[in-house]
Amino acid sequence: LDYQHVQVPFEITLWIMLASLAKIGFHLYNKLPSVVPESCLLIFVGLIMGGIIYGLNDRSPPVMDSDIFFLYLLPPIVLDAGYFMPSRPFFENIGTILLYAVVGTIWNVFGIGFSLYGICQVKAFRLQDVSLLHNLLFGSLIAAVDPVAVLAVFEEIHVNEKLHILVFGESLLNDAVTVVLYKLFRSFCEMPTIKSVDVFAGVGKFFVVGLGGVLVGLSFGFTAAFTTRFTKDIRVIEPLFVFLYSYLSYLTAEMFHLSGIVAIISCAMGMKRYVEANISLKSHTTVKYFMKMWSSVSDTLIFIFLGVSTIGENHEWNWPYICFTVIFCLVWRALGVLVLTFFVNRFHVNTITSKDQFIIAYGGLRGAICFSLVFLLPDFHRKKLFIAATTVVILFTVFIQGMTIRPLVDLLAVKRKRESAPTVGEQIHIRFLDHLLAGIEDISGHWGQYYWKDKLEYFNSKYLQKILLREYDQPKSSIVLLYEKLERKHAIELAQAGQLGHGPAHPSFLSSSDRTVITDQKLEDTPNPNVLDNMQEILARNLYRIRRTGPAYNRHTLPGDSEPTERAKEILILRHKSL
Amino acid sequence: LDYQHVQVPFEITLWIMLASLAKIGFHLYNKLPSVVPESCLLIFVGLIMGGIIYGLNDRSPPVMDSDIFFLYLLPPIVLDAGYFMPSRPFFENIGTILLYAVVGTIWNVFGIGFSLYGICQVKAFRLQDVSLLHNLLFGSLIAAVDPVAVLAVFEEIHVNEKLHILVFGESLLNDAVTVVLYKLFRSFCEMPTIKSVDVFAGVGKFFVVGLGGVLVGLSFGFTAAFTTRFTKDIRVIEPLFVFLYSYLSYLTAEMFHLSGIVAIISCAMGMKRYVEANISLKSHTTVKYFMKMWSSVSDTLIFIFLGVSTIGENHEWNWPYICFTVIFCLVWRALGVLVLTFFVNRFHVNTITSKDQFIIAYGGLRGAICFSLVFLLPDFHRKKLFIAATTVVILFTVFIQGMTIRPLVDLLAVKRKRESAPTVGEQIHIRFLDHLLAGIEDISGHWGQYYWKDKLEYFNSKYLQKILLREYDQPKSSIVLLYEKLERKHAIELAQAGQLGHGPAHPSFLSSSDRTVITDQKLEDTPNPNVLDNMQEILARNLYRIRRTGPAYNRHTLPGDSEPTERAKEILILRHKSL
Repeated sequence: LDYQHVQVPFEITLWIMLASLAKIGFHLYNKLPSVVPESCLLIFVGLIMGGIIYGLNDRSPPVMDSDIFFLYLLPPIVLDAGYFMPSRPFFENIGTILLYAVVGTIWNVFGIGFSLYGICQVKAFRLQDVSLLHNLLFGSLIAAVDPVAVLAVFEEIHVNEKLHILVFGESLLNDAVTVVLYKLFRSFCEMPTIKSVDVFAGVGKFFVVGLGGVLVGLSFGFTAAFTTRFTKDIRVIEPLFVFLYSYLSYLTAEMFHLSGIVAIISCAMGMKRYVEANISLKSHTTVKYFMKMWSSVSDTLIFIFLGVSTIGENHEWNWPYICFTVIFCLVWRALGVLVLTFFVNRFHVNTITSKDQFIIAYGGLRGAICFSLVFLLPDFHRKKLFIAATTVVILFTVFIQGMTIRPLVDLLAVKRKRESAPTVGEQIHIRFLDHLLAGIEDISGHWGQYYWKDKLEYFNSKYLQKILLREYDQPKSSIVLLYEKLERKHAIELAQAGQLGHGPAHPSFLSSSDRTVITDQKLEDTPNPNVLDNMQEILARNLYRIRRTGPAYNRHTLPGDSEPTERAKEILILRHKSL
Repeated sequence: LDYQHVQVPFEITLWIMLASLAKIGFHLYNKLPSVVPESCLLIFVGLIMGGIIYGLNDRSPPVMDSDIFFLYLLPPIVLDAGYFMPSRPFFENIGTILLYAVVGTIWNVFGIGFSLYGICQVKAFRLQDVSLLHNLLFGSLIAAVDPVAVLAVFEEIHVNEKLHILVFGESLLNDAVTVVLYKLFRSFCEMPTIKSVDVFAGVGKFFVVGLGGVLVGLSFGFTAAFTTRFTKDIRVIEPLFVFLYSYLSYLTAEMFHLSGIVAIISCAMGMKRYVEANISLKSHTTVKYFMKMWSSVSDTLIFIFLGVSTIGENHEWNWPYICFTVIFCLVWRALGVLVLTFFVNRFHVNTITSKDQFIIAYGGLRGAICFSLVFLLPDFHRKKLFIAATTVVILFTVFIQGMTIRPLVDLLAVKRKRESAPTVGEQIHIRFLDHLLAGIEDISGHWGQYYWKDKLEYFNSKYLQKILLREYDQPKSSIVLLYEKLERKHAIELAQAGQLGHGPAHPSFLSSSDRTVITDQKLEDTPNPNVLDNMQEILARNLYRIRRTGPAYNRHTLPGDSEPTERAKEILILRHKSL
C-alpha cells in the first residue's frame, strides 16, 4: 500500500465525490429541498463530518484554507454567474446595483464598525481592548453580501428578475469595495500612525481596484473571443479557452490586487456573445454544462467546508459582541436599503416596491467570503472572537434567513419570475421598442441608457464583430439565433416522437392524377424547401436592415447628405437645453 | 504585485494555454500536419522552449516530474482511450493483443536486456560496470510500446481497424507487464542476493497486477453506473461521476501497486454502456467532449514537456550503447512480431498479412512512459547514460518512425479504415450473424468467442442491466439507439436547412374536397405519427425477441420442457468430442 504517493489527488477526488453524493442524496427525497435550502443541508453535513473528525482525532478539524477558497473554489462560481448573467436586466439596473454595492456596502461597513465600537465602550461587556480600527476591519469583512450564499438561496425561490438581479448584482460588485476597505483597514491596523493622505489614497484605490478589474477582465475576454476565431479545425479544445482565459483574468487581477470577481465577470460577459458565435454547437453545450457542473460542485464544497470549519476550538465566545453583531448587520442593512431606495425611486418610473425592499434587505446573506477573510486576519488577541462572530452571522443568515425567506416571499406575494422563455414575437417587439426609445432619447437630446446601448451596439457591429467573429459576413441577430434554436428543439422533439416526415416516401405508389393534387397542395400546406429558405433569408436580412443599416432609422450615418447641418444643429440645441 | 500568491495555478494555466495555442498554430497551416505528425511538432516546440529556458537561466530546464506525469497527465489520455475503445474489434482480437502485450513485451525486455549486456562485455566500449540486472531493468523500461505516442501517430494515418487495435491494445495492456518487470528488477538491483522464490513471486505478481487492475476498474465502473441511476433530478453533475470514478479507479490501483492503466480502461469500458443509457443526451455530449479535450491537452503537454526535458545536462553520451539500444529495440520487436504472428496465424482464419506485421513492428513507438520511468530509477552512476539512451530511442521512434510510417502505409497500400459509419441495415446483419455463429458454436460444442459473448450478454440482460440501468423496463438495443441518433441528426439537418415541415399549417385554406384526398394520401405518403410510432415499437420489440427471448433461438431457457434431456445429451456428446 502506497497511500502517500496518491494522497493529494485521492483526497481531492474523495471530497468532490462526497459533495456530489450529498447532492444526489438530498434530491432523492423530494420533500426536503422544498423546505430547507440546499446550502443549509450542506452546512449540516459539514457540521456532522466536522464533529466526526473532531471526535476521532480529538483536535480541531482543518479549516477551509483561504487560498484554496479564493484560488480554486470561488472562480468557477463567479465565472458561472458572470457567463449566465442576464445582461438586459443587469445593465438596465446597473445604476441601482452600483449604488447598493458601493454606497450601501460603505454604509454598512462604517455603520456596523462604529456601532460595535460603541458596544465595546460598555464596561460590563469587557470589550474595551477592541479598538475602533479593529471594529472597522471587522465591519469591512462582515458587511459584504456573499454571492455564493445569495445564489444558492435565490435560485430556489424564483423571485422576479429585477429583484434577483438587484441582490445578486450587488453581491458580486461589492467585492471591489470589500477588497479595498478590508486591505485598507488591515494596513491601518499595522501602521503606527494614519495620515490623511492614506485615507485619500484609499478612496482613489477603490476606483483603481474596480475599474482595473473591469479592464483586465475585458481584455482577457476579447482575447478569448479572438482566439476562438482560429479553432475551426480543432473544435475539441474550444471550451478550454473559455475556462483558461477567464481563470487567467481572475488570477491576473488578484496578482495586481485588483478585484478578481469583477475581472472574471467582465471577462465572461465580454466574451460570451462572440465566443458563442465562434464555437461549435457541441462546444457550447460543453462550456455551459461544464460551467454549471463546476460551479455546482464548488458551491457544494464551500458549504460543506463551512460546516466542517465551524467545529473546533477556534472560537472565543462573548454574548454581547456576537448578539449585537447579528443585530447591527440586520439593522444597518435594512436602513441602508430604505434610504438608498428612497433616492433610487425618486429618479425612476419603475420603482422598487416596499415588498421588494424588504426582500432585498432580508436577502443580504453572508457566506464563505467573510469566513475566508476573517481567517486571513493578522494574528491579534481578539481574532477568535471575530471568527466566532463571523461564524454566527453566517449560520444565522444562511439558516434563519435562508429558511424563512421562501415562506416570506409566499406570504408577501412578491412578484415571481415568469416561467416561460420569451417567444420570437416578444423578442422582436422588445427590440423594436428599444430602438424606438433610442430614437426618442436621441431626438430629445437625452443621453440615457438606450442612447448608450445603441452607441455600444454600433461600436460592436462596426469594429468588435469584425475583429472577434470568425464569419463576419454572416452575423446572426439573436432573434434569428433564437428562431434556429426553437427549430432545432422542435426537430429533435419530432424525431424523438417518430413524427419526422421524410418527404414523399413512395411516390411510385401514387397514381399520376393524385400526384398533381398533392404537388399543388404542398405549396400551400407545408411550403416547399426553397420557399422556406427564401422566407428565412428575408426574415434574417430584414431584421438586420431595421437594426443597423435601414436608412430611415440609422442614426450613425446620415442618409445621403440631405440637410445634415440643420439636423445636427437641432439635436445640439435640444442637448443644450437638456443639459 | 503579488506573484507568489497565484504562482501555482497561474503557471499551470499558462502551460495549458501554451499547449492549446501551439495546437491552434499548427492547424492554421494546413500543409504542416499532413507531413509531420503533431507529436513531432510539439516535441520541437518543447525543444525550443527548453533551449530558451536553458539559455536564459544557464541551467537545465526542469524535467517533467514523474508524479505529475503518472498522476495528472496520463489518466485523461488512458480514460479517453478506454472510453472510446471500439469494443468489438478489441474483444475479437483480445487473444492476439494479450499475446503481443504479455509474451511480446517479456520477449523484448529479455532480448534487449541480454543483448545489451553482451555489448557491455566488449572491452573497447568501456561499459563493463553495467551489470546484467541493470541492463534488464533498462530493458524493462525501454521495451514497452507507449500508448500516447501510438495514439498520436496512428490517429493520423487511418490504418484498418484490426491493425490499429492490435498495436494500440498492445500498448495499453503491456502496462501490467512493464509495471511488474520494472519493479521486480528495481527491487532485485537493491537486494544483496536474489533467491529463486523472488523470481516465482514475480511471475505470480504479474497475474495479481493485471487481474487486480481489471477487478478494481470494473468495480469502480459498475459503481459509477449504479450512481448515475439516481441523478435524474440533478443532471448537471452527471458528467462528474464518469470522471471521478474512473480517476479513483486509477488512483486506487496505483495505491495498491496494481496496473492503473488496466484499471482505468476496465472502468471506462465497464461503465460506458450503462452510463450512456442513464445520463441525459447533453451530459453525454459533455462527457465525450470533455474527455477528448482533456486527453488532447494532456497529450500536448506531455510532448512539449518531453521536448523541454530533453535539453540540459542530464545526459551521459556513449555511442555504442545508445546506437545498439536503438538497433536492438527495432530488431527484437521485429523478431517478436514475426514469431508471435506465426503462431497467431496458425490458429486464425482471418490471418495477419505480412504488410500488417511490418506496420505492427514499425509502429512500436516509445514515449513519455519510458521517459518518466527512467527518471524514477534509483540513483546509480550510470543513470545519466540510461536517460540519454531513452531520450534517443524516444526521439528516434517518434521522429524517424513517426514521420515515415505514413509514406510507408501509402507505399505498401496497407488496408485503410472505412470512412463511413455502419448503417442500420449492416448492424442488423452483423448482429444476426453473431447470433447465428453463437448458435453454431453451441451446437457443435465449441466454446468460442461467440459463445462467451452470448453468455455475457445473457448475464448482462438478466442481472447487470436490472441493477445498473435506471429504466430497465425500456431497454434499448444499440440498433434502436443508432436509429434514433440518425433520426435526430437528420432532424437537426432539416431544421438547419429550414426544411422542417410543421404539418398542415393552414388547414382552413383547403377546400373540403381537397382535404379528403390529402388525408388519404398522407397515410401512404408520409405515414402518420401513430403508424410510425407503432412501426418503431414493433421494430424495437422484435429486435429484442430475436436477441433474447425468442423461443426458437433462446439457449438459456428451454422452450416448454420438450425433449430437454435428449438435447442436453446431444450437446454434451458434441462437447465431449470437441474436448
